[in-house]
Amino acid sequence: MAASASISKTIYVGPFVHSTSLTDLEIEEKGAIGVDENGVIAFVERNVSQAGIEDVKSRNPGWQDAQVIKLEGNGFFFPGFIDTHTHASQHPNTGLFGKTTLLDWLQTYTFPMESSLSSVPTAQRIYQSFVSRTLSHGTTTCAYYATIHVPATNLLADICLKRGQRALVGRVCMNSDLSPEYYRDESVETSVRNSQASIDYIRSIDPKGEIVKPIVTPRFAPSCTSDCLSAISKLAQETNSHIQTHISENKGEIALVQELFPKSKSYTDVYDTHDLLTPKTILAHAVHLSPEERQTILARKSKISHCPASNTAITSGCAPIRTMLNEGLTIGLGTDISGGFHPSILENVRQAVWVSRHLALQTGDDATKLSTEEALYLATRGGAAVVGLEEQVGGFDVEKEWDAQMIHLGSVDEEGSSDAVVHEGPVDVFGWESWPDKVEKWVYSGDDRNTIAVWVRGRLVHKTALYSGPKDATTL
Amino acid sequence: MAASASISKTIYVGPFVHSTSLTDLEIEEKGAIGVDENGVIAFVERNVSQAGIEDVKSRNPGWQDAQVIKLEGNGFFFPGFIDTHTHASQHPNTGLFGKTTLLDWLQTYTFPMESSLSSVPTAQRIYQSFVSRTLSHGTTTCAYYATIHVPATNLLADICLKRGQRALVGRVCMNSDLSPEYYRDESVETSVRNSQASIDYIRSIDPKGEIVKPIVTPRFAPSCTSDCLSAISKLAQETNSHIQTHISENKGEIALVQELFPKSKSYTDVYDTHDLLTPKTILAHAVHLSPEERQTILARKSKISHCPASNTAITSGCAPIRTMLNEGLTIGLGTDISGGFHPSILENVRQAVWVSRHLALQTGDDATKLSTEEALYLATRGGAAVVGLEEQVGGFDVEKEWDAQMIHLGSVDEEGSSDAVVHEGPVDVFGWESWPDKVEKWVYSGDDRNTIAVWVRGRLVHKTALYSGPKDATTL
Repeated sequence: MAASASISKTIYVGPFVHSTSLTDLEIEEKGAIGVDENGVIAFVERNVSQAGIEDVKSRNPGWQDAQVIKLEGNGFFFPGFIDTHTHASQHPNTGLFGKTTLLDWLQTYTFPMESSLSSVPTAQRIYQSFVSRTLSHGTTTCAYYATIHVPATNLLADICLKRGQRALVGRVCMNSDLSPEYYRDESVETSVRNSQASIDYIRSIDPKGEIVKPIVTPRFAPSCTSDCLSAISKLAQETNSHIQTHISENKGEIALVQELFPKSKSYTDVYDTHDLLTPKTILAHAVHLSPEERQTILARKSKISHCPASNTAITSGCAPIRTMLNEGLTIGLGTDISGGFHPSILENVRQAVWVSRHLALQTGDDATKLSTEEALYLATRGGAAVVGLEEQVGGFDVEKEWDAQMIHLGSVDEEGSSDAVVHEGPVDVFGWESWPDKVEKWVYSGDDRNTIAVWVRGRLVHKTALYSGPKDATTL
Repeated sequence: MAASASISKTIYVGPFVHSTSLTDLEIEEKGAIGVDENGVIAFVERNVSQAGIEDVKSRNPGWQDAQVIKLEGNGFFFPGFIDTHTHASQHPNTGLFGKTTLLDWLQTYTFPMESSLSSVPTAQRIYQSFVSRTLSHGTTTCAYYATIHVPATNLLADICLKRGQRALVGRVCMNSDLSPEYYRDESVETSVRNSQASIDYIRSIDPKGEIVKPIVTPRFAPSCTSDCLSAISKLAQETNSHIQTHISENKGEIALVQELFPKSKSYTDVYDTHDLLTPKTILAHAVHLSPEERQTILARKSKISHCPASNTAITSGCAPIRTMLNEGLTIGLGTDISGGFHPSILENVRQAVWVSRHLALQTGDDATKLSTEEALYLATRGGAAVVGLEEQVGGFDVEKEWDAQMIHLGSVDEEGSSDAVVHEGPVDVFGWESWPDKVEKWVYSGDDRNTIAVWVRGRLVHKTALYSGPKDATTL
């Protein structure tokens, strides 16, 4: 449905901000971006005056009748966020973790919740509301863990397709007795058969994978027997699927992996010897990897999802992201609901910066600090590369697709009256700020209230009351 | 004005949550709290059914005609937050710090901004909007740093009094050449005279100090000459004023203090030898204090403001709060705008938990972790003790005053439709949560949208569109 919905040729006029490299953020105050009927960026013009839209149109044959969406005020267009790791099924546990760390958290909070999605109406309620949440935070692409249940997993894919959110949707494989008897795959055969069923279904509803794709999802090494890991790896290979799993999140978990897989040299080696490290593999966390493990992952071209809010909340550790970037690893951000306490990638941009500062405090080495620009890169182009969409999304380049958010910042009037507080969200602009300062205010004090519209492939997939287009869009 | 505004005798009916000790949070599902015409809590009843309001009234003579404000749905009453350290004058810099740490941050961002408050219209705009922000986050008491300017400082006190927010308002003293020539007190005499003028003004507008009080504010040791510290200490003593300053925030700062005060044994010793450590002194940060320094502060009964968001944002360090609590120090939370990036104490409750977890990761000692309960205590009763209001506010006890917030949590309907996302703020309640889980969801995923009404001394000082009382209040 979403994939085929027709959209109007549109020129988005106003400031835009995006990463041009890991360390550089382009802030173009006077942009005009043409998006065609397929949601593809046809042109990106800079230094365009409001009055110059006619010139833009005449320079671009065939755009005379295009719709124009103008961004007024303190806002800007920003690429949609990519969430490279989250558990949609744990949405109702957001904010709950008490005093637990990873292994007891799974037993206390996670498995009971996930198991309840054997009920399709429960899954409908949870997934529908979670997709609303992630879209509202500007997340245009999401790598989702569902549960072991095929019907609920397929439903999540249906919802993403209908709502127009790009998604990798994974049925969770877990057959070992780490998981409780009430919530695990009965056998290796069940793991494979049910994963295959979900892959087939997702490919049937979006054959080209334009919006939703399947992803093979062995939960993590302790959840799967060696046989299961081998079988699921074979399935991924046969179906040419993405793969997602967890790695090296917590020291207790690492010890458990060593105990369960005594012949393996390391946690990474477990996956490597089961042929699970491919260029289409997303490894979440990667907090405590050794340099040798990182070299193996780099050599296999597997990708890393950094989940800073989660790693802080359940006291897993500080992943050395700056080091891993220097080594050449491909890294994006993940919210990791509900180990992470917030479904927003913007919150995780901040948390990535905080974690890197805590690492600097621990090590005394300021070189570990991530800059704002770097964290925003991870949230967009970095994430796009992690999910294999680096050619399609992550920045405003010609031939990429229009996955974008319209950011609106509040303005404080001359009397400092409280209107902005009530109506315009958490960012206060006084008017004297430079453009880099306005962007930094959004990064460090903004939230979903500042994301007033969200597009995926040119389709409007979320808006708030503050968004006035395209009703107010001018067709010049 | 605020102090004398008459209010209706009111019974607040519904769940309430507050700290009863550092480690214990009381969650009373069926509360009824009677607040008299002076904003003082006359009774606190528990296990009251909705139908039992008449019984409550008859048990409490004179309350027959009291107004009733009922809290329906997933919400609860919670004590107003106490912000024990923030710079109102730095509000426009919220979210800006780039790559700086303390000392260059002061020169780059802070001094130029503060100096602009020599203009009263500028101050009006900044202070009016900042008080709106802090009230919207449920902050009912705030220890404010203003600037060196007497008119602007007095204006901040006027605004707090008019809006009904309890405040300690401090004109900043700084006469050393650490501060730029364009922004410092010309002489020790200027420091004293202008501080005295502000104290006198604030006491003239609120003679009993029921809402606003002055606070003597030597910025921090490097900003003041020894003569100035002595003179300002004498002023505090003569006027029986509170004192606030910064201590041991950053290692570069500590080295600078040692260089500027070579005869002092420590940073703490600088303040101690200038008689600035009193039971009415608030010391912000306290990140790197030695055990001896902490003993001195404890012996002087001075108080600590922990500013975790700030300490992370400008990479100052992790204050060992659990250790300091064990030692018996009195501690509250501070937002430290704009070193801190968020005017919300709830955000700092979370950040206090995160900082304590990073400390656990650094030290390998899980005993450094703060629990949710402990962080909420710091935000309320702890903060009240820091600002000398422990008898008046911080919890729902008879004879305390009604400084409270009404918390509303969103609910996910059966279809999981997106209404809650749009209208009810960031917390999703599915209906199966226990009360402790609901409170934890608020703590870890809530924001100002969940604070739908705020009272100080029984006066409604902030509300959002979701607050339906007292229009819907029933006078039974």
